Amino acid sequence: MKMINFDHMSANPLLPEIQDAMIDAIKKNYGNPSSQHKLGDQATEVLDTARESVARLIHCNNPGRIIFTSGGTESVNHAVKGIALANAEKGKHIVTSNVEHNAVIKSLRRLKKSGFNITSVPVDSRGCVNPDHVANAIKDDTILVSIIHGNNEIGTIQPIEKIAAITKEKNVIFHSDAVDSVGVVPIDVEKPGIDALSFASNPFYGPTGVGGLYIRSGLKIWSLLDGGAQENNRRAGAENMIGIVGMGVAADLALKDMNARIEHTKMLKAKFLEELPKYIDEYLINGHPEHCLPNLVSVSIKYIEGESVVLMLDDENIAASTRSACASGSLRASHVLLSTGLEFADAQGTLVITFGIDNTEADIERFLTVLKNAVNTLREMSPLYKKAVQS
Amino acid sequence: MKMINFDHMSANPLLPEIQDAMIDAIKKNYGNPSSQHKLGDQATEVLDTARESVARLIHCNNPGRIIFTSGGTESVNHAVKGIALANAEKGKHIVTSNVEHNAVIKSLRRLKKSGFNITSVPVDSRGCVNPDHVANAIKDDTILVSIIHGNNEIGTIQPIEKIAAITKEKNVIFHSDAVDSVGVVPIDVEKPGIDALSFASNPFYGPTGVGGLYIRSGLKIWSLLDGGAQENNRRAGAENMIGIVGMGVAADLALKDMNARIEHTKMLKAKFLEELPKYIDEYLINGHPEHCLPNLVSVSIKYIEGESVVLMLDDENIAASTRSACASGSLRASHVLLSTGLEFADAQGTLVITFGIDNTEADIERFLTVLKNAVNTLREMSPLYKKAVQS
Repeated sequence: MKMINFDHMSANPLLPEIQDAMIDAIKKNYGNPSSQHKLGDQATEVLDTARESVARLIHCNNPGRIIFTSGGTESVNHAVKGIALANAEKGKHIVTSNVEHNAVIKSLRRLKKSGFNITSVPVDSRGCVNPDHVANAIKDDTILVSIIHGNNEIGTIQPIEKIAAITKEKNVIFHSDAVDSVGVVPIDVEKPGIDALSFASNPFYGPTGVGGLYIRSGLKIWSLLDGGAQENNRRAGAENMIGIVGMGVAADLALKDMNARIEHTKMLKAKFLEELPKYIDEYLINGHPEHCLPNLVSVSIKYIEGESVVLMLDDENIAASTRSACASGSLRASHVLLSTGLEFADAQGTLVITFGIDNTEADIERFLTVLKNAVNTLREMSPLYKKAVQS
Repeated sequence: MKMINFDHMSANPLLPEIQDAMIDAIKKNYGNPSSQHKLGDQATEVLDTARESVARLIHCNNPGRIIFTSGGTESVNHAVKGIALANAEKGKHIVTSNVEHNAVIKSLRRLKKSGFNITSVPVDSRGCVNPDHVANAIKDDTILVSIIHGNNEIGTIQPIEKIAAITKEKNVIFHSDAVDSVGVVPIDVEKPGIDALSFASNPFYGPTGVGGLYIRSGLKIWSLLDGGAQENNRRAGAENMIGIVGMGVAADLALKDMNARIEHTKMLKAKFLEELPKYIDEYLINGHPEHCLPNLVSVSIKYIEGESVVLMLDDENIAASTRSACASGSLRASHVLLSTGLEFADAQGTLVITFGIDNTEADIERFLTVLKNAVNTLREMSPLYKKAVQS
């Protein structure tokens, strides 16, 4: 039975062009860009080419402002901790939102142990941050605002440009965790007020374990990885050449095909939302209906546990997720869903479906058929459901 | 003209078996080990297999004590900063040596900004740390000793086991930067007193951008990368699956072939040292003649600059280095060489040659012929040389 991947956010397949480029890089055996001879020169060229591709993807005028990292998590840790620690003499207050990824939340938790204070602004029922709340949260000693771009659990895209305009006016540094947005929707880091932006290669079909961080010229930021002079003295360590080559090609393809990918996944999402009520009842759709990632649907199905549905889907060779791939070690309800005002029980019944360019309308039909059976089976066993039906 | 690589430490070629495994991983398109379905299960298996291979290489009884990182630099930053910050309430004093890699030095420099105090013990003329000096440097508030294993510039291997016995007795945490030793010479992390050990894949012919960190059970250490629950909650971020697969196979090969590789590079080193005086005069060999990496020769050639020699060798398709690949952005004299008592001018005239399994005795003959011409040419232009000859 064909595997249907409705969990692209956890594991996008490497596209054939990206595979070819990485295989070619493996066979060419590039040297170390930091070495002083021809083997190093070749590697430097390869690195520069990939950096230019990534810069184009985020409309960055100067590729030198981008450093390669080991992924979105490193980029976020580097940005949040590095900006906070480098600017601590100005103040120790940071503003964030209630719907950040764990990389931001846990980086901030570390900083709290070093005396930083955090204000986390709420979101509305669609998961949106109100820019006025950010403005009001900024105090004299606020040095950093870090707000996620596209949410990895509910898809909501925050009003980043409005927030960046506020931070710019108030002379506060602004970082956005755009890991699930870059390569998926248009991003322009040259928009006023964007000081740092984190991203990763896998959301746009590149390899895992490689990402990037945009750092505005003149921004004070500590390195997370100290050591050698790589990445313009901003990120030490021998580069993951093969991953970076893959990311570069992935960036070229993402830029070229972005509109087509958006249209395709939007079509699938519309189809899914249209068909869903024909298969199951009593569910909620999370996130903002318009300001959202085109490839993500979050649906909370009442009286069941999302985890059980994921396992039953897996038995039928369908990959889905309950929430962010990174959080799926723990079994608590998602902080993002609870922040939108969702009940704990409904949050537990949430499935996150992320479409990709390899999905078809037929995949949706099969998915919904399996989902219907799974939900019926689970509800038959659910005391909550029996109670609801009886009442 | 065939390229001769005498700079294996900067850029080891990926061995065919490692290339094949990585290409296979690319084609198999493993999912995300953290996801909740079959695509994730496959990835978890692959990750476990690689972790077991790496554990065997360092004689670690429990593969769960090893985390994968983005390379030696991340491992060192994680260990040094993570141990210091997690144990700061016990004290803020750290002991290190004068011959550490920049990853350790610069991590410690960061910690100094956060109120830590560093004592750096000297080395003798062969680059050896005296364990008694370490013992004497440990104070009541010392929480960490971090000493390099095999030096990346002069090859000297430190008396790690003696130092670890001292730290164990004094109840101080011990970390060793073994980036240029693991996979090259035998390492046993189960030896008493070794609490953390950093290493990387590329010194044993694996890919760049992937490494590991051994953390003894029960050690208090902060994560460097906070976020998801990956790597047993110790290192967040989606794993570099393709790199890790490569590292696993590289570890298997390194373990199997270690003795043969040591014999081969030792033979080349002996040949080189035997032949060298027939080609040039007035030079010094750095490092310890016995307690040393088998694949490294550091030679300081009087009255010339190593940088110029590297460029002239490169013209003849021979790759060599002046010092650690990571430092080669800057033009200062090596702190390691100066620590051994070498004169500044002699330090500037240093070449670091690192042999690999693809090198032959014929490579040495060609290298020495080119080196002789380069040295003669440079000395003819050198005012220092003219002065020395006249006196």
